Amino acid sequence: MTRAAVLGAGSWGTAFGKVLADAGTEVTIWARRPEVAEALATDHRNPYYLPGVQLPPVAATDDYARALDGADIVVLAVPSQSLRSNLLVWSPSIGPDATLLSLAKGIETGTLLRMSEVIAEVSGAAPERIAVLSGPNLAKEIAAGQPAATVIGCTDAERAAAVQRACVTGYFRPYTNTDVIGCELGGACKNVIALACGIASGMGFGDNSLAGLMTRGLAEIIRLGVALGAEPVTLAGLAGIGDLIATCTSPLSRNRSFGQVLGSGGSMQAAQEATHGQVAEGVKSCTSVRALAAAEQVEMPLTEAVHQVCHEGLPVQSALEKLLGRRIKPE
Amino acid sequence: MTRAAVLGAGSWGTAFGKVLADAGTEVTIWARRPEVAEALATDHRNPYYLPGVQLPPVAATDDYARALDGADIVVLAVPSQSLRSNLLVWSPSIGPDATLLSLAKGIETGTLLRMSEVIAEVSGAAPERIAVLSGPNLAKEIAAGQPAATVIGCTDAERAAAVQRACVTGYFRPYTNTDVIGCELGGACKNVIALACGIASGMGFGDNSLAGLMTRGLAEIIRLGVALGAEPVTLAGLAGIGDLIATCTSPLSRNRSFGQVLGSGGSMQAAQEATHGQVAEGVKSCTSVRALAAAEQVEMPLTEAVHQVCHEGLPVQSALEKLLGRRIKPE
Repeated sequence: MTRAAVLGAGSWGTAFGKVLADAGTEVTIWARRPEVAEALATDHRNPYYLPGVQLPPVAATDDYARALDGADIVVLAVPSQSLRSNLLVWSPSIGPDATLLSLAKGIETGTLLRMSEVIAEVSGAAPERIAVLSGPNLAKEIAAGQPAATVIGCTDAERAAAVQRACVTGYFRPYTNTDVIGCELGGACKNVIALACGIASGMGFGDNSLAGLMTRGLAEIIRLGVALGAEPVTLAGLAGIGDLIATCTSPLSRNRSFGQVLGSGGSMQAAQEATHGQVAEGVKSCTSVRALAAAEQVEMPLTEAVHQVCHEGLPVQSALEKLLGRRIKPE
Repeated sequence: MTRAAVLGAGSWGTAFGKVLADAGTEVTIWARRPEVAEALATDHRNPYYLPGVQLPPVAATDDYARALDGADIVVLAVPSQSLRSNLLVWSPSIGPDATLLSLAKGIETGTLLRMSEVIAEVSGAAPERIAVLSGPNLAKEIAAGQPAATVIGCTDAERAAAVQRACVTGYFRPYTNTDVIGCELGGACKNVIALACGIASGMGFGDNSLAGLMTRGLAEIIRLGVALGAEPVTLAGLAGIGDLIATCTSPLSRNRSFGQVLGSGGSMQAAQEATHGQVAEGVKSCTSVRALAAAEQVEMPLTEAVHQVCHEGLPVQSALEKLLGRRIKPE
């Protein structure tokens, strides 16, 4: 029987723990906070991050070494910007042949590394032991058992298939892909495009404009991906356009709401207030994505426009005119 | 100055006539009904198919030969299933070097030909004279001047660029592409996937499931496209996923509404009543797309499921179980 340690008990870590358990995998969830671990272990519930959801029997602990003991699959479910510091602590307790599966999406600020690169650097694991999971996966819908599909990216196809078997259920359909870079990039860039969609929606534009934005967003993500060694068709898949559509169309998305305020003429301050004082993820990630694009000499006009609106005070109307006024060209 | 004849004064033909005129092209719109031609010519309005929109000065007539006289670009804006019969009448009046630009989307019932193939067969025009226009283009939003992007597909890149120059405006951004098959296929298959999204939505599923459906829908359209000679990346573009997203997310889509009734347990009869007695396009096109897939030996599980639900009485719940119960595989 496969044993999985899920490190991180946020909404997605918890929901994915449920998926693994439903698939027949033995699951131990690690939570930083003892009270979260306690609720998971005793009631199989997580009232802090996934309220209202009854999990199947899972073990839980606030002791990472106990969670990692004997784990074949180590699921890294902490925020992208804290993955490095956490993994530094965990690494010595991870088994020498365990698969390291990242649920984190993003580019590390400063280093501009993808999550699989951070994992390789910190853990010293060979690339074939590192896998990533990405797709249109909103924790709440999956926890409710709604049908979902995802991709498991790993350069080792057999290892990807082993993870796939460990998490396939009647409602969760994982596909495998050996293109890890392609699987990671969509998730790292999507929030910038979701912010752009929010802005467009705030300016009063409809489904047409938004579909065009998502597609041209995908086109620039594909250009960056190709420069980094990804396959374009991966980005046309679940971890690319699939995740992008879910993020851009979900009314629950903070990026969408934040952009909407900017699009309707509100300031950054007003947008932040409207999203309960939190800055949308896309506001931060447009800076790293833009830096990565500059390093690879790739043109990303939408990301550039979002950056100028959020960080250089460009009015949204001028951003739109700049985008539509560019030289006409092949697709 | 470029002269364009727009043959067909439905909502999209009229809106695209406006785009051409706004781009500085001289436009004559042909309408089958004299009263439509009269309203267009006199008031520059089309109260029958695009109410509330003021067009720039365009000429209009119910005499196709007059519209075609001296036209460099002949825009074919009639429904896909009547393109052949119309073009048979028009062909002798079309100039020997005019570009034939199709706005029609679909596969001809019976012959299973794409629109560009129908045009070639009927008009005898060389492939480099035949172009198609496709993208996320809802007539109402474009007529309202909302930003939109589209693709002009033509094997002759220079001719595509000439059409591009004839229709670029401050709100309408056309790209060119030499992959005509890729540009046509998305539009021909999209309504089937929109119907599937409607069904899923009617079953109570959210953004996650829908994003997954669109993406797996795209995956099977790409498989068919590759078999027919299209480039996958074209289908990841505006005429593929772009049009698919707009069609699947628009609340105005008849396919979406029709599917919604089926998904919530209603009969085909009930769905038809809910959409004012009209059968959704996807109900018809799933049959031709499925036939084309069979001829090319391509697996299209979503199209197959929609066909079984619409034409073989398969309950939606069984269709879902069949889809999720398939063997797990690479993306």
